[in-house]
Amino acid sequence: MKNTAVLLIDCPDRRGLVARVAGLLFEHGANILHADQHQDHDLGLFFMRVEFAIGPADGAPLEESRGGDAARAGAFDGNFDLEGFRTAFAPLARELAMRWQLSSTARKPRVALFCSQYLHCMADLLYRWRTGELACEIPVIVSNHREVEKLAGFYGIPFECVPATAATRTEAEALELALLEGHRIELVVLARYMQILSPAFVQRYPAAIINVHHSFLPAFTGARPYHAAHARGVKLIGATSHYVTEVLDDGPIIEQDVARISHRDQVEDLVARGRDLERMVLSRAVRWHLDRRILCYGNKTVVFD
Amino acid sequence: MKNTAVLLIDCPDRRGLVARVAGLLFEHGANILHADQHQDHDLGLFFMRVEFAIGPADGAPLEESRGGDAARAGAFDGNFDLEGFRTAFAPLARELAMRWQLSSTARKPRVALFCSQYLHCMADLLYRWRTGELACEIPVIVSNHREVEKLAGFYGIPFECVPATAATRTEAEALELALLEGHRIELVVLARYMQILSPAFVQRYPAAIINVHHSFLPAFTGARPYHAAHARGVKLIGATSHYVTEVLDDGPIIEQDVARISHRDQVEDLVARGRDLERMVLSRAVRWHLDRRILCYGNKTVVFD
Amino acid sequence: MKNTAVLLIDCPDRRGLVARVAGLLFEHGANILHADQHQDHDLGLFFMRVEFAIGPADGAPLEESRGGDAARAGAFDGNFDLEGFRTAFAPLARELAMRWQLSSTARKPRVALFCSQYLHCMADLLYRWRTGELACEIPVIVSNHREVEKLAGFYGIPFECVPATAATRTEAEALELALLEGHRIELVVLARYMQILSPAFVQRYPAAIINVHHSFLPAFTGARPYHAAHARGVKLIGATSHYVTEVLDDGPIIEQDVARISHRDQVEDLVARGRDLERMVLSRAVRWHLDRRILCYGNKTVVFD
Amino acid sequence: MKNTAVLLIDCPDRRGLVARVAGLLFEHGANILHADQHQDHDLGLFFMRVEFAIGPADGAPLEESRGGDAARAGAFDGNFDLEGFRTAFAPLARELAMRWQLSSTARKPRVALFCSQYLHCMADLLYRWRTGELACEIPVIVSNHREVEKLAGFYGIPFECVPATAATRTEAEALELALLEGHRIELVVLARYMQILSPAFVQRYPAAIINVHHSFLPAFTGARPYHAAHARGVKLIGATSHYVTEVLDDGPIIEQDVARISHRDQVEDLVARGRDLERMVLSRAVRWHLDRRILCYGNKTVVFD
Repeated sequence: MKNTAVLLIDCPDRRGLVARVAGLLFEHGANILHADQHQDHDLGLFFMRVEFAIGPADGAPLEESRGGDAARAGAFDGNFDLEGFRTAFAPLARELAMRWQLSSTARKPRVALFCSQYLHCMADLLYRWRTGELACEIPVIVSNHREVEKLAGFYGIPFECVPATAATRTEAEALELALLEGHRIELVVLARYMQILSPAFVQRYPAAIINVHHSFLPAFTGARPYHAAHARGVKLIGATSHYVTEVLDDGPIIEQDVARISHRDQVEDLVARGRDLERMVLSRAVRWHLDRRILCYGNKTVVFD
Repeated sequence: MKNTAVLLIDCPDRRGLVARVAGLLFEHGANILHADQHQDHDLGLFFMRVEFAIGPADGAPLEESRGGDAARAGAFDGNFDLEGFRTAFAPLARELAMRWQLSSTARKPRVALFCSQYLHCMADLLYRWRTGELACEIPVIVSNHREVEKLAGFYGIPFECVPATAATRTEAEALELALLEGHRIELVVLARYMQILSPAFVQRYPAAIINVHHSFLPAFTGARPYHAAHARGVKLIGATSHYVTEVLDDGPIIEQDVARISHRDQVEDLVARGRDLERMVLSRAVRWHLDRRILCYGNKTVVFD
Repeated sequence: MKNTAVLLIDCPDRRGLVARVAGLLFEHGANILHADQHQDHDLGLFFMRVEFAIGPADGAPLEESRGGDAARAGAFDGNFDLEGFRTAFAPLARELAMRWQLSSTARKPRVALFCSQYLHCMADLLYRWRTGELACEIPVIVSNHREVEKLAGFYGIPFECVPATAATRTEAEALELALLEGHRIELVVLARYMQILSPAFVQRYPAAIINVHHSFLPAFTGARPYHAAHARGVKLIGATSHYVTEVLDDGPIIEQDVARISHRDQVEDLVARGRDLERMVLSRAVRWHLDRRILCYGNKTVVFD
Repeated sequence: MKNTAVLLIDCPDRRGLVARVAGLLFEHGANILHADQHQDHDLGLFFMRVEFAIGPADGAPLEESRGGDAARAGAFDGNFDLEGFRTAFAPLARELAMRWQLSSTARKPRVALFCSQYLHCMADLLYRWRTGELACEIPVIVSNHREVEKLAGFYGIPFECVPATAATRTEAEALELALLEGHRIELVVLARYMQILSPAFVQRYPAAIINVHHSFLPAFTGARPYHAAHARGVKLIGATSHYVTEVLDDGPIIEQDVARISHRDQVEDLVARGRDLERMVLSRAVRWHLDRRILCYGNKTVVFD
């Protein structure tokens, strides 16, 4: 298992940012494993992600991994003083007007999964979580249907059924928000959850609700995008994962992918192929979020690979 | 060189269509090389493409082709009576309410290429034409700019400059239509031609004007799609080739393709990457049209591969 | 649910084949829903797949399907006499030296799934089976490990643990073959089963054992292909599903796919990305096999889409 | 036009590298536009690319570029003292055992293009060069055939025909090397040049000869890879650009891409589709090399995007 910390920064661009940040990390003895940065020259913004070792790597090797080598990669001789660095970094961050977060990758974010009756994304996320691909806690699964109950049970995750209709939407959201708060949820994943969240709900989790839309946004927003794609006669279909904002299907895009179709494919075929796309773009988005690879700004994302 | 004919059919679906068509071809001694068909069950339509030998194949082998084998593939011992078959097929076609075309692939359609100042698609089409990948005659290149003149000269194709502004659009189109008529043009290819054609012009060439739009339609219709894609923060950009109808960017889609981009890519990068996509989707569309692989119906295409 | 039959044919190519087959289907009143054919001109072979309605379509609409329309697509007014057609077709098939199979799609092939300790392909196949994407019976899951037991239990499928080492391989295969026979298995799917099957085993199931190899064959045959890919510094990794023959990693390829990697990706990353590729290429191969879309000849496949 | 410099570094990994380099750039007042780095933890190596402004950006905006904004992006108020920085950097580089290069992007590398009779890659590279996509000088085109002469003439580039057979290979190479030296060539691009270069030739241009091989290496090395791919029945074909080393088709891979094929595609179709792949992977490799984005180590490349 990795024993690292990630520092994520965005701030107004200015000269010497990298030198200042790298210098401070160096002074504290950090062993940088990955570093990536980005400038938006139009907006004058700077983005940075640094991952560094904070202690000896540990744990069983992955399938076919190189054992000793892989372990060595994250090696650290001693323990990095993460809190000491945090204290030292704060004044620099203030001076440079940074938004920043610094967190140990050992601390797993707490995630709630929402779904409706289609379970392909849910089943995929749960399998990836079980195999360690998604480094998070999943204290609760929420659905307005009961289809997911058995699957939740198989993975030993508490399931909460919160029925929702247009009439009961406000009440249902209050219940859901109480659940999220009770479970101290940090990220909400809408795995084909077919209810539209209210602005009030969305505002409680800024850049912390990930949705999958079954089209190549901004084409085919709204309901039944595979029907719309079939009607338009497109030659590729797509899926999009994005952060949820108050405007439907309009939040910052995290990932998109497409698949080739032909005149032979009926709506049913598009739906079936789309399921694979949805799984891929949603699981990638969740993984990148959990790995602290994503920064949001304006209506866009920076995804450090 | 292939010595084949292609029969393209669309008609109301009914039982026995394949048997009737295949039976007639068999009676006339056709050696079928490729056959493909499609039903649109929703609309009750039937589509078919049959390619068959009409004489001995001939000509130099392609790069690395198998020489004798390749020649043998299209072999035909004797000459198929294409006109005799046409005469025999007509009553069947009438009976079954077919739209159909039957043509020798040796007869090369006459194509006019239009462009404005960006020449990447034009240069690509001309190179493919020169190497035999596009089986057509190109009697004329038309542009509202002069940039293409030298390139046209290199390939020995007459160039006509027809300047067009909003004020002179009607007049310019009259000139262009006269050119097309004079050259007996059967297909117009808009290789990044930045003028909008009038409905009157479009109606003269139904399903015979191919355009390339530099986005993944129906996303980002209209002007400056790469700017729009950059502003929206998409993770893939696309290009679309389609038949031109009276509604801008709305005609039947022939081909689409996409390329992955990231937050690092500025509008300039999107433009550069898009050029490769545009070349690919436009050249494929033109090739498929020339090879009689495309059938239009409603606002869609069937593309037999 | 579809109520159709599929006729799969391969035979020496000769004129009039389509006319003969289509004619016979027409005489028997078949309503052809899909037909596709292929000629290998080098080898002089002809391949054909015809799917036709044999009774009224039935069952609940799929997600977002068009309800009445979708039902109508496969509609058949009355019942096709499948056995009568079979009897009538046999002499034609003999005359034309055809290998052929004719089967109702309602009859679900019986499939055995094999795996070792990595379960991603198994989990994926089982989920797709549960949702109806894979139309088969799965009477048994076989593994030389116990990891799959719980998953098999969740899906209610009997699990048989057959440990195998080099020393006990013969004995183990005898046990496996008895299981396959006992369950009247028609297709064996090796979902990352890490044992090499003996020629004797393979010969019992010609073109009926599907394996997934975690490389883009023929590159990186044998063990640890992700390590080999990493060592070679390739920019894309791949996965391949294929029928198993007596020569390791050499059977007819059914499907391949690739994913882009970069210098940032370590072996662990290749393994993780590869899992998604493996799932995709294996599940597609199994689906196409079950849908009677694949014909093997020589060391190749024809896959009718 | 960009007015920037690029610093490329590789060296043994150790703590504080980024801080040292970034600190020195900061002291000299560099305005960093892009920075990227990579560690190979297995080999303990560090790689870095930094691009920074060295003077005011200048020149006409690209197609659809944002004019003022784009100009502003590379703006620099004053002139960076590149030679002063070089002098200051040298002792740091020595201390840290760096291999490094520092160059102004305004200085265009001198490139020789080699080809044989197939011109698709050559035509593509020349068009991209003409439009500014490839920032280099092309003082000479060399071929063992005459097919390219007219094309070279159109672009105004001197053409040298150096016939080569097995018997005259040594002599021909001597002639070629003299040409390269006379033109002070820094990069040799083999645009489907079908002669095998001798080890002596290759050693003169380490990591400075780029070749395109028409397969997805390491599959199908050697001659006639499309035939081999067709015979093996693969479902995707590929192309690979790589640096040339003394071992045929074995040098560090720069870029690869693939295209889907089917049983319908004959060798001729593979050749035709492959041409597009070859163009793409070769032109990308050349562009990345010219943009100083590639570092070679062992038998691999780091490509900073």
